[in-house]
Amino acid sequence: MSQGRPSGVTIDVVDGGITAPPGFRAAGVASGIKKTGALDLALLVADAPASAAAVFTTNKAQAAPVLVSREHLARSGGHAVAILVNSGCANACTGPEGLAVTRSSADFVASIVGCAPDQVLVASTGVIGVQLDLDKIRKGAGSAAGALSRNGHLDVAKAIMTTDVAPKEAAVRVATPAGTFHVGGMAKGAGMIEPNMATMLGFITTDAAVEPAVLQRALKEAVDVTFNAITIDGDTSTNDTVFLLASGTSGVAVGDALYPALVSGLREVCGMLARAIVRGGEGATKLVSITMTGAVSVDEATKAAKTVANSLLVKTAIHGGDPNWGRLVAAAGRAGVAFDVERASVRVGSIVLFKEGVPFDDRAPQAADYLTGTDIEIEIDLGAGGSHAATVWTCDLSAEYVKINGEYRT
Amino acid sequence: MSQGRPSGVTIDVVDGGITAPPGFRAAGVASGIKKTGALDLALLVADAPASAAAVFTTNKAQAAPVLVSREHLARSGGHAVAILVNSGCANACTGPEGLAVTRSSADFVASIVGCAPDQVLVASTGVIGVQLDLDKIRKGAGSAAGALSRNGHLDVAKAIMTTDVAPKEAAVRVATPAGTFHVGGMAKGAGMIEPNMATMLGFITTDAAVEPAVLQRALKEAVDVTFNAITIDGDTSTNDTVFLLASGTSGVAVGDALYPALVSGLREVCGMLARAIVRGGEGATKLVSITMTGAVSVDEATKAAKTVANSLLVKTAIHGGDPNWGRLVAAAGRAGVAFDVERASVRVGSIVLFKEGVPFDDRAPQAADYLTGTDIEIEIDLGAGGSHAATVWTCDLSAEYVKINGEYRT
Repeated sequence: MSQGRPSGVTIDVVDGGITAPPGFRAAGVASGIKKTGALDLALLVADAPASAAAVFTTNKAQAAPVLVSREHLARSGGHAVAILVNSGCANACTGPEGLAVTRSSADFVASIVGCAPDQVLVASTGVIGVQLDLDKIRKGAGSAAGALSRNGHLDVAKAIMTTDVAPKEAAVRVATPAGTFHVGGMAKGAGMIEPNMATMLGFITTDAAVEPAVLQRALKEAVDVTFNAITIDGDTSTNDTVFLLASGTSGVAVGDALYPALVSGLREVCGMLARAIVRGGEGATKLVSITMTGAVSVDEATKAAKTVANSLLVKTAIHGGDPNWGRLVAAAGRAGVAFDVERASVRVGSIVLFKEGVPFDDRAPQAADYLTGTDIEIEIDLGAGGSHAATVWTCDLSAEYVKINGEYRT
Repeated sequence: MSQGRPSGVTIDVVDGGITAPPGFRAAGVASGIKKTGALDLALLVADAPASAAAVFTTNKAQAAPVLVSREHLARSGGHAVAILVNSGCANACTGPEGLAVTRSSADFVASIVGCAPDQVLVASTGVIGVQLDLDKIRKGAGSAAGALSRNGHLDVAKAIMTTDVAPKEAAVRVATPAGTFHVGGMAKGAGMIEPNMATMLGFITTDAAVEPAVLQRALKEAVDVTFNAITIDGDTSTNDTVFLLASGTSGVAVGDALYPALVSGLREVCGMLARAIVRGGEGATKLVSITMTGAVSVDEATKAAKTVANSLLVKTAIHGGDPNWGRLVAAAGRAGVAFDVERASVRVGSIVLFKEGVPFDDRAPQAADYLTGTDIEIEIDLGAGGSHAATVWTCDLSAEYVKINGEYRT
């Protein structure tokens, strides 16, 4: 994700996750929504009203917290003080009752942190169609407000997990000639993941000073090539959300000159989190990057890459270490984009298995050997004569995925 | 599939598969393409040149036999004498060499059965990217020609299998006021199945007398609501083909009056074969029909039904007997069609789990009980206020699917 980094800008990975940028405190608590007693409620609070940006799911069935957060951002003019997130219950497809619970949750948080209700953003993740327990949210949010800390990043990263195997955090320091700022973040997501616009839940903070409109543009630009370029199972959630808050604490104001540096920092953090989501995909054992070249447009390259990335036959072959490049060609061929099999090529790692319509099946053993690794790179030239390319990240499909998803509720 | 059957027409299921209609002989042999020594080459021969129709894959990577058969049908004006089918090798992505092998195979069959080369149709199924052994094809076709029989249906049905667990045959007798004719058929397919136009390999015969153009129209009409309405894994093969030959042996000429009876017979046979393909899908344990109602067009109903039918989260939930209707709503919501969650409903069997935006989660145990069956019916009202509907058949997704497809070649 380092391509296009502006000159004179240095980006270093740092610790601290979502509270790495000064100006934010966080706490994660166990509110009882998860019956296991695990952390399930996260509260992030800005020391002062922060610029806020968001991208939401494109699914037409949108969860109550998505509807409410969208409304709050519009009303507040892109400012927020707090984000409340619960796991264990998606509060989606819950009708008017679900919407009322979400509004009451936001009102309650506003009252305890001392801000306007529309300065509170909300997100939920978990089972669809079950009502969220407002009492548990209130008690949990109260406890969390009393436990807010500049070091709360790991607790909140844990509190937003569902079937995730590990918390997902990332943070960088962006040094520019005009000053240094930070970008930090956390994400959750392990299934129902093919973002069309946002993905699962992602939360990003920065101490740069950025106007809301600029912040929104930068977030969209970073998300398009990170969270929106991953797919685990092709399903788009009802709750997908990425929030970005900017505290301005660093005093580094992002105008035209520093905009590329901000986007670079966001791409770095969003990219790390997005790849962590794929690597931690339900039942996943491999991170697979699919690069599509020779396309007549970036859209066609992306469409073909996603078709290949979501092919069950491709995902199972990679899982089994089977260099079945024919499945890659077949998936590209049905993607609905310009494709010429007589000029198409397939590369698995550094091994060319198919070039301009001719197979090199004798190289299959080499490719099989490469596929025993955990980081797989595949490149397909669509042979369409175009000069456009796109990369999508996905994971393999294992029997464990079926097990996890066949037994989710029961 | 019995809806729309014309009055005065009786359709009865009969034995005999693809050789049930008089005028055809078949033989299946082991040519050595499959290393296991199983039957792998099928030859079907009409006693006299038959009217012929076909539908082929919409995948842009089309296998050599698809290219050659399309060419032959055009040149022969829709007539054929023989169909040669091999399993174990798809002869797809095999470049000029693969094309030459297919042409030589057809020439050889023409020479031994005594017809023009363009009266021979060909189909292949199996691994992509491996060259087909012409010597084995020639020896096998020679043996098959010597073994042709009016009772050869089961051998050819076995010879076209790959990972299929059982041969798939169907046949009916269509009694009309103007006379009686038969429709028979066989199919194979267990993976890489989401037909956009045809599906896997299907072979249909009839002893009705039908002009090629009428035969083509009838085949397309029947295939659209049968083979084209199933999906196992969303992948469209490079080799998908359905052939239909009409011998005319019955003396029953199909004009405008009998056309509906012909289509009914074809729908019956194609429907039985299509559902057999889904029921025998790789690792499948359940046949699932997804009916989408309340859509603004049949296209939107079909698109939404296929999106739900291909959702890994839906397929794994059904496999695990989990009445996770939220996944159904989420999949419908991302289908890219008109959808209103506040007016949408979900029915699993006879149990309504979600109605006009409100969940009935207390009925989940009843639905879980229903999902222990092997024939599952799901109906989703998109709430879009339209009056259009469509049904798609799919299967559940099991760990066995992953096992089969992770180990296909190795």
